[in-house]
Amino acid sequence: MEPIRTRMTALARRVQDQVCTAIEALDGTAMREETWERPGGGGGTSRSLQDGHVFEKAGVNVSAVHGELPEGAVAAMRERKQNLPDGRAFFATGVSLVLHPRNPFCPTVHANYRYFELAGGAAWWFGGGADLTPAYLFDDDARHFHRVHKAACDKHDPAYYPRFKKACDTYFRIVHRDESRGVGGIFFDDLDEGGAEPLFALVADLGDAIVPAYFPIARRRAKHPYDESHRRWQQIRRGRYVEFNLVYDRGTVFGLKTDARIESVLMSLPLTARWEVADRPEPGTPEAALLEVLRHPRGWT
Amino acid sequence: MEPIRTRMTALARRVQDQVCTAIEALDGTAMREETWERPGGGGGTSRSLQDGHVFEKAGVNVSAVHGELPEGAVAAMRERKQNLPDGRAFFATGVSLVLHPRNPFCPTVHANYRYFELAGGAAWWFGGGADLTPAYLFDDDARHFHRVHKAACDKHDPAYYPRFKKACDTYFRIVHRDESRGVGGIFFDDLDEGGAEPLFALVADLGDAIVPAYFPIARRRAKHPYDESHRRWQQIRRGRYVEFNLVYDRGTVFGLKTDARIESVLMSLPLTARWEVADRPEPGTPEAALLEVLRHPRGWT
Repeated sequence: MEPIRTRMTALARRVQDQVCTAIEALDGTAMREETWERPGGGGGTSRSLQDGHVFEKAGVNVSAVHGELPEGAVAAMRERKQNLPDGRAFFATGVSLVLHPRNPFCPTVHANYRYFELAGGAAWWFGGGADLTPAYLFDDDARHFHRVHKAACDKHDPAYYPRFKKACDTYFRIVHRDESRGVGGIFFDDLDEGGAEPLFALVADLGDAIVPAYFPIARRRAKHPYDESHRRWQQIRRGRYVEFNLVYDRGTVFGLKTDARIESVLMSLPLTARWEVADRPEPGTPEAALLEVLRHPRGWT
Repeated sequence: MEPIRTRMTALARRVQDQVCTAIEALDGTAMREETWERPGGGGGTSRSLQDGHVFEKAGVNVSAVHGELPEGAVAAMRERKQNLPDGRAFFATGVSLVLHPRNPFCPTVHANYRYFELAGGAAWWFGGGADLTPAYLFDDDARHFHRVHKAACDKHDPAYYPRFKKACDTYFRIVHRDESRGVGGIFFDDLDEGGAEPLFALVADLGDAIVPAYFPIARRRAKHPYDESHRRWQQIRRGRYVEFNLVYDRGTVFGLKTDARIESVLMSLPLTARWEVADRPEPGTPEAALLEVLRHPRGWT
């Protein structure tokens, strides 16, 4: 059998293909592809769509990079993880996507699955997750998204979903607003327990879960009637998405401080966003109902 | 004579009045005022305007707050400044403003002047500055803005302007884009050399310089004809403004991590912003000319 690093790179590409096929089918627009090389080693392929029929902005990136980690990056890892081997040689591969639909009733989705090796594989781990960010809450959508992810997790260990769901609510918190970014999903990092083969199988199933978890929702909401007031609220929520990603998201903050490819790091940002002086919704409105759930995350399965 | 803290609070209010009078006269719109109290001590007054005729969003805030600094804040200060006195009692007062005009040819302006005391005045310093952020470059505007600030500085010490101009170019750098936020101005922090009275006189003159430095430019550019392509570029540059403020601006980053009033901390963000997949301007265009100056800051006096 091929080593995990090779199979994970192939998995990332397969997920990219699956998701891009679903995007193009729903949107009726061909995505633009750009292949790039990393000066220090490796490279990636970005597929993107802007100003489509359904998606205002969509990016699906894969990369497989290797080389020497900067000192600062290694120091940060050592703070997080005990007993790391000496050496700064690394390999990292994964798939990362953010889809921002135009329709305010159609939620944004983010997913990312990645595999990391240090010192030629002497240490390795998986990280990733998927989460849903609506501007207007449909319980059915949140339930569907969570159920599909729970089913994929449960095939491997019934303890995974509750743990990853909780980690997702903790991670995607806009602390200064005391709000979650969205209605959550799953999140894990530094996952190396129980061996690489079972974890690779888990991540493969989670990668395959993206299309069935999200696209039935997108198809259902993409043509929901809306007016300027809905669009305004969506734009305010997009502003919150920007706040989370630039202030808290580990991958973004890390990417901005290293020599990462800036277009890939910031592809998660929406096409447009809005910050008003006073943006509190009136009590009893659908906008206030969303905020209530963002303040107090709930269970969806 | 009243102590500096009292006179600086009055100065902040006077600058707020001056600038708001100029905004209202140019825009033809009354600003909205909100007074707030800080649970730990003190408070402030925010004046704002949204969706005006000239200004898409404008905020002019004053505050005078006191109490006990969080441990983390004191630790950060001690890293920056030697020989700070013991104790966490603080007093801070100042004025802060960001004006985002609607017209893409009319630049954004930011200014902030503040006075800080630690341990009942055992340590104190002034901080502040003013900078101009155009989406389209007019050399005359940049020159005028810099000259007015140079004249205010030169009254006090001819060494100030070159030093503060350089500090401004260094500070307002969007490092991950290798671009400055705008065409600069002046910036200083931790200024305590030569005694409080001469520095208060400097800051008073700089506060009074905001209206003559900016409003002649705003009046000149507010009715410049523009089309959707200019507006799009302005929105992309507004995205960069958001990136700088959320990732690098000390006051914003510090405010997000403490119990500061979030509406005041984020009032600097534009009403709307835009992030495109590929946003490089064509060589030889006015958009490319701006980028060239942002990459390589130049002298304006």
